[in-house]
Amino acid sequence: MSSPDLKNEIKVIGKKAFEAKYELQKVSAKEKQDALLYVANKLVSCKDAIIEANDKDIKAGIDNGMHEGLLDRLRLNEERIEGMALGIRQVASLPDPIGRVSDSWTLENGLKISKVSVPLGVIGIIYESRPNVTADAFSLTFMSGNAVILKGGSDAINSNLAITEVIRTALSEKNLNPDFIQLIPFTDRAAVGELLSLREYVDVVIPRGGAGLIRMVCENSKIPVIETGSGNCHIYVDEFADVSKAIPIIINAKTQRIGVCNAAESLIVHEKIKDKFLPLLSDAMNEKKVELRADEESISFLPNAKKATEEDFGTEYLDYILSVKTVKNVEEAIEHINKYNTGHSESIITENKETAEKFLKGVDAACVYVNASTRFTDGFQFGFGAEIGISTQKLHARGPMGLNELTSYKYEIIGEGQIRG
Amino acid sequence: MSSPDLKNEIKVIGKKAFEAKYELQKVSAKEKQDALLYVANKLVSCKDAIIEANDKDIKAGIDNGMHEGLLDRLRLNEERIEGMALGIRQVASLPDPIGRVSDSWTLENGLKISKVSVPLGVIGIIYESRPNVTADAFSLTFMSGNAVILKGGSDAINSNLAITEVIRTALSEKNLNPDFIQLIPFTDRAAVGELLSLREYVDVVIPRGGAGLIRMVCENSKIPVIETGSGNCHIYVDEFADVSKAIPIIINAKTQRIGVCNAAESLIVHEKIKDKFLPLLSDAMNEKKVELRADEESISFLPNAKKATEEDFGTEYLDYILSVKTVKNVEEAIEHINKYNTGHSESIITENKETAEKFLKGVDAACVYVNASTRFTDGFQFGFGAEIGISTQKLHARGPMGLNELTSYKYEIIGEGQIRG
Repeated sequence: MSSPDLKNEIKVIGKKAFEAKYELQKVSAKEKQDALLYVANKLVSCKDAIIEANDKDIKAGIDNGMHEGLLDRLRLNEERIEGMALGIRQVASLPDPIGRVSDSWTLENGLKISKVSVPLGVIGIIYESRPNVTADAFSLTFMSGNAVILKGGSDAINSNLAITEVIRTALSEKNLNPDFIQLIPFTDRAAVGELLSLREYVDVVIPRGGAGLIRMVCENSKIPVIETGSGNCHIYVDEFADVSKAIPIIINAKTQRIGVCNAAESLIVHEKIKDKFLPLLSDAMNEKKVELRADEESISFLPNAKKATEEDFGTEYLDYILSVKTVKNVEEAIEHINKYNTGHSESIITENKETAEKFLKGVDAACVYVNASTRFTDGFQFGFGAEIGISTQKLHARGPMGLNELTSYKYEIIGEGQIRG
Repeated sequence: MSSPDLKNEIKVIGKKAFEAKYELQKVSAKEKQDALLYVANKLVSCKDAIIEANDKDIKAGIDNGMHEGLLDRLRLNEERIEGMALGIRQVASLPDPIGRVSDSWTLENGLKISKVSVPLGVIGIIYESRPNVTADAFSLTFMSGNAVILKGGSDAINSNLAITEVIRTALSEKNLNPDFIQLIPFTDRAAVGELLSLREYVDVVIPRGGAGLIRMVCENSKIPVIETGSGNCHIYVDEFADVSKAIPIIINAKTQRIGVCNAAESLIVHEKIKDKFLPLLSDAMNEKKVELRADEESISFLPNAKKATEEDFGTEYLDYILSVKTVKNVEEAIEHINKYNTGHSESIITENKETAEKFLKGVDAACVYVNASTRFTDGFQFGFGAEIGISTQKLHARGPMGLNELTSYKYEIIGEGQIRG
């Protein structure tokens, strides 16, 4: 239950962001870039204060028995603050996504129509206890002309308050409204619910984090949500696969970084290639200590594999585990993927163009690959320069979301007195 | 409260649409166009059955004391069925919105990325008792490769069932899956709630109708919604307005069709032009029987005007009423519009380029006009060939939504064995 105070304070934050958004839309590209560089420098020069605040979070984390992996994500040091600043400088170097004319035409009656990119307005970002996301989310929303309301994980509250304070001070020093960035200062769980109900002030909410966080946001938000991140990615090794490409791609997609959304979680094998391919897979995965969970048709070729259950095929392990499923043809592979995937990234290994085309068209996912690792689904890899996340939905934006995906558009129409007949 | 049967049947409808969507994505442009032409002819040849069903709705409407305006929207006759068929033929003549490559590039590592348009999947459309929307919504969703679930107004249930049955039969006769279009056959209000909870099967819901319907859908939907239609549109007559353009534009925007979302509802006047302009406005509006509701600064120039309340400025009258507000400058006009508008269409009348530019950039709406009537905000007028509605939100699509706005995209990435370093 929310206290009236908490409810009211979050409403005030929403209102301030709403009022600030039109101001931000008037800030020029040059001013935005200057301000970002200034913020980056200021974060580095205020690193002691930030690290001191972070120490409090780390101590509390240790006292609460936080896992080492989570503590590592929470921890800030000089190098990591330099990394945050570098990220902000990179965003400052990108082209302004606002004011781009993506289309223009003249009607027979002489009206001139231009489709022009504009900010979304106010963006809410809800994330876990990773304080670097605070700086990251600010740089992307600010550069795309959007006011942002941040709600970070409770365990990072002191770090986030310190980072936000530095950014707000820097904005003020550049004669800009500090309310372009606001942090929800409450650790109470009810605060998220209040943020998600600010329909009149917030245009879109983007959750950044694990599947549980994303589900919670989707289920409770009264504001439109862009779903990101959850990735049950498959690699399909076709009858006509070049095995010398398949094995390195699977090793890369499964093991280069196991905890990320574009890592492969499931392998699909054409039955005609299983006797040739699966023993090689088994060796490669054993060497990388990847546990295989295989269906009946494949398990006899995989000496150390466990038997896969139905549940395995729907699981994003984020671990050294890979499920294996055998299919009769590419159609069955597509059907299996469309049943179990999360709309993220899927890859086929084949030398057959027709089969590749069927896979490209038939698989329902943001990114569909032929003969490449799913690990490339990433705003930096795609050349967007930065990303706020990977959208796994179809409305608005799909796949890696860079600055352009944080914009909307308006039609500007120039007439000379035209009326409709 | 929903009965278990109703809940279950609507779930079955959702599942069928979900299963049909991948089938529809494989139907070629040519097949879609052929099928639409066949459906159009079939509607005309089955007109007697449709009119017979419509008669039942009309009789029930009369028995229930339905207003003449609503009865008129509900009524079908030979001419209107021909009109429905014509609309479908027009959609069939449009370019296929699916499979368009909107962008493509090659990364340094050789990966070739293409951004390709794809259908959204399953679209739910909720509308009032206008049976023509049934045919209209089908043609647009089908041509854009989307399966559709329709929930029309209860008063049109017999007409909608008859139209849907003709379309489904026509699809079957063309060897296509009739489940590309399904109608919720229940008139129970709970049916809408059930449809709005089919998150696992339906990708997006589009309400088509009045402000009440749209609000109800937005407030209750578990599925992403595209808000359409509500339009509190303003015309701002600037200090540098050419009054000979202003008066015809205001007459057109206010009175050409009073019940539509792109009609003007409010006039804003620069204080320096009020003595010259307002008497002319008063005459023009008196002649058209438009009631004026004016603020203190303007009322003395408008002999027949009533005094405007704060509420007037937030009201979409859809009637022969226009509110009048005086401002000191374009900035105040922009601020007033951004406070009261619904993000639809706004127009400035000015000969001053700098002021026009301020208005174009500052006003937050889908369509911002200079020296033209707001009545042009329309998919046909814009040259889109058709429209499902006018989006008043910023996510996904804004302004007139044609076939392209009913699509998403995927990235197709072609490699030769690339892995991430």
